[in-house]
Amino acid sequence: MDISQFAQINPPQRLLMGPGPINADPRVLRAMSTQLIGQYDPAMTHYMNEVMALYRGVFRTENRWTLLIDGTSRAGIEAILLSAIRPGDKVLVPVFGRFGHLLCEIARRCRAEVHTIEAPWGEVFTPDQIEEAIKRVRPRLLLTVQGDTSTTMLQPLAELGAICRRYDVLFYTDATASLGGNALETDAWGLDAVSAGMQKCLGGPSGTSPITLSARMAETIRQRKRVEQGIRTAAHQDGEDEMIWSNYFDLGMIMDYWGPERLNHHTEATTALFGARECARLLLQEGMDNAIARHQLHGEALLRGIQAMGLETFGDLRHRMNNVLGVVIPAGINGEQVRARMLEDFGIEIGTSFGPLIGKVWRIGTMGYNARKDCVMQTLCALEAVLNHLGFKTVQGAAMQAAWDRYTSEGSL
Amino acid sequence: MDISQFAQINPPQRLLMGPGPINADPRVLRAMSTQLIGQYDPAMTHYMNEVMALYRGVFRTENRWTLLIDGTSRAGIEAILLSAIRPGDKVLVPVFGRFGHLLCEIARRCRAEVHTIEAPWGEVFTPDQIEEAIKRVRPRLLLTVQGDTSTTMLQPLAELGAICRRYDVLFYTDATASLGGNALETDAWGLDAVSAGMQKCLGGPSGTSPITLSARMAETIRQRKRVEQGIRTAAHQDGEDEMIWSNYFDLGMIMDYWGPERLNHHTEATTALFGARECARLLLQEGMDNAIARHQLHGEALLRGIQAMGLETFGDLRHRMNNVLGVVIPAGINGEQVRARMLEDFGIEIGTSFGPLIGKVWRIGTMGYNARKDCVMQTLCALEAVLNHLGFKTVQGAAMQAAWDRYTSEGSL
Repeated sequence: MDISQFAQINPPQRLLMGPGPINADPRVLRAMSTQLIGQYDPAMTHYMNEVMALYRGVFRTENRWTLLIDGTSRAGIEAILLSAIRPGDKVLVPVFGRFGHLLCEIARRCRAEVHTIEAPWGEVFTPDQIEEAIKRVRPRLLLTVQGDTSTTMLQPLAELGAICRRYDVLFYTDATASLGGNALETDAWGLDAVSAGMQKCLGGPSGTSPITLSARMAETIRQRKRVEQGIRTAAHQDGEDEMIWSNYFDLGMIMDYWGPERLNHHTEATTALFGARECARLLLQEGMDNAIARHQLHGEALLRGIQAMGLETFGDLRHRMNNVLGVVIPAGINGEQVRARMLEDFGIEIGTSFGPLIGKVWRIGTMGYNARKDCVMQTLCALEAVLNHLGFKTVQGAAMQAAWDRYTSEGSL
Repeated sequence: MDISQFAQINPPQRLLMGPGPINADPRVLRAMSTQLIGQYDPAMTHYMNEVMALYRGVFRTENRWTLLIDGTSRAGIEAILLSAIRPGDKVLVPVFGRFGHLLCEIARRCRAEVHTIEAPWGEVFTPDQIEEAIKRVRPRLLLTVQGDTSTTMLQPLAELGAICRRYDVLFYTDATASLGGNALETDAWGLDAVSAGMQKCLGGPSGTSPITLSARMAETIRQRKRVEQGIRTAAHQDGEDEMIWSNYFDLGMIMDYWGPERLNHHTEATTALFGARECARLLLQEGMDNAIARHQLHGEALLRGIQAMGLETFGDLRHRMNNVLGVVIPAGINGEQVRARMLEDFGIEIGTSFGPLIGKVWRIGTMGYNARKDCVMQTLCALEAVLNHLGFKTVQGAAMQAAWDRYTSEGSL
């Protein structure tokens, strides 16, 4: 191997306007360049406690067990599902896009009995539809996706907690793509577990997953407690339920690591934690409501611009996520050719799609650090130029004017 | 919540001379402050391919499947064990410290039938002892720890591959704490799987785990292939063996993500990947043999200094790791008091111990970025001062002189 072929890292400058990852806030990257400290250094455990407090603010909860899972957003999902689902438990998954299928997939690997209801891509469920399915299936857990970027739809969750309580169902949502850009009220909505990721509205890099667990969920998980060999002592009693079939994702042990016992488990990913702390700090400095309003504003400006360009949008606009827009690729235009021109000639990335939407829909994000006017204006301008270049006619400048109109209208920030 | 209480991150400056994590190389932290790119950007997939090539150099292997698991070092362990062990499979674990127990623990959660042999803490196994156990147990996998930081011992592995081939056993080692500071020859030693971590001799922060799989191991894992719902197509055939009971750690899908199909799985932790790339690049620029010699030199200088200070070391010195030294806490000295004075007054962290060694042994590391003369000299000097302050008498300056002697002797770099 000729090591001189491997140069210092120097990726091209990109404006990431897809469904995530997006550009990280430079302040987050700077926080992540901080030198390390030991994992039981009082300064480190203090930062861990701060992270718990900060994410309580982000998740809008008083939950004690609000912490980070060291892995990408699906590590957070799997930690919750593996720890909460006992083999054979019934779960209900309302599927309205790819990430509902992912919850089914993970639940099956937890040996759950998985029941689904499905909505057409581009739509969401009513509370009645979900209650109806709960009555029929009688699941132990309801597993939902809040914002499914595959369809850009946002499932309303506010009424589901009360329904779950009525039928004694544990209520989980995957807020990876929605948290920080759309309202999420963990306590007010009666959620028992929520997981998220950094690379969407939180403005950080993928690699650590914030989660929060209600007291009820924590108690359920404690029933499966097994302290690992090598560090367990006579004082450690086993829980009554079947053990959790993973060490890395055993939330009981992870709680003991984040809790006052500080029982050694993994070696906390310090750099990722420094980044996650800064993401939450910046978001709470801005204020959660302001951050959500910012995502709404820039998402609407993008929407108006896209419509004024003569393009159709995908899905039910009443239920779209603030931070991702599905744009129908017009007839006669090769979607991948547009994406390639955007990337190579303008340095702007927009997203393709999964499954039934491949080749039919682009996904354009306005989230986290990139929920900004300049990002929206640059993206609209470049997209118009590329479409014109490839033969799709637009009214010159109409897209940008529509965005400007939104920015100067009432309700702008 | 009063957000103004949460200041910009600013941890105290520490010299981390414990068993890891240690200080990250500043060049690695700078690489990690690089702005993000999209996960399928050609620049990103190029970096992923470079990471595979670089870690082949680090692991000394031609293995195609050499990649990163997004999580801490035990995520790499669990990904390999969950993917390789079918429920009911017999595994053999030679246990000579805490991390052998961890392999048993993880294997049990994979529903393995776990067999162990145990060596007293401070010793390792002979190849004969391991062959004897293999003949008796007839396991499908041999799970070893190369360097167990709990005892500071390094298990010789060079002869085990041939034994495993004779009995058709898959051969895994956990090289988290040893890789980069001690010889490891994946191909020459017949290893089927190796996992590592960043926060020891590789000089990076915890958070991603490099692994390598032999063709034989990859084939074994392919027998369990299931492409996940939501992205699977009619072209995806299931493997013949029982599925892997995890989505996040399904190495079949992770290979498809790193391979030419680029099948979406997790969102690669870009910042961690940039860091891991820089760690490997720096190590290979130095040369693996040079890096190991550097760890040996500074480990020996520390050892000579500790001995000249009148302190006893722990364990069989013929089998110690180059990068961690066990130091017996002298009678009449409170080990935690010494560690607190070292940390608070000198900003130097040395390690405590686990299990039977708690309160009896300190662990002092010389690894990665901190395998340097100035780190060794500062640590010896501070330790002598603290011990003297607490009433333990030493010959003034003898420790530092012994280290100097080692640095000026033949075999110094």
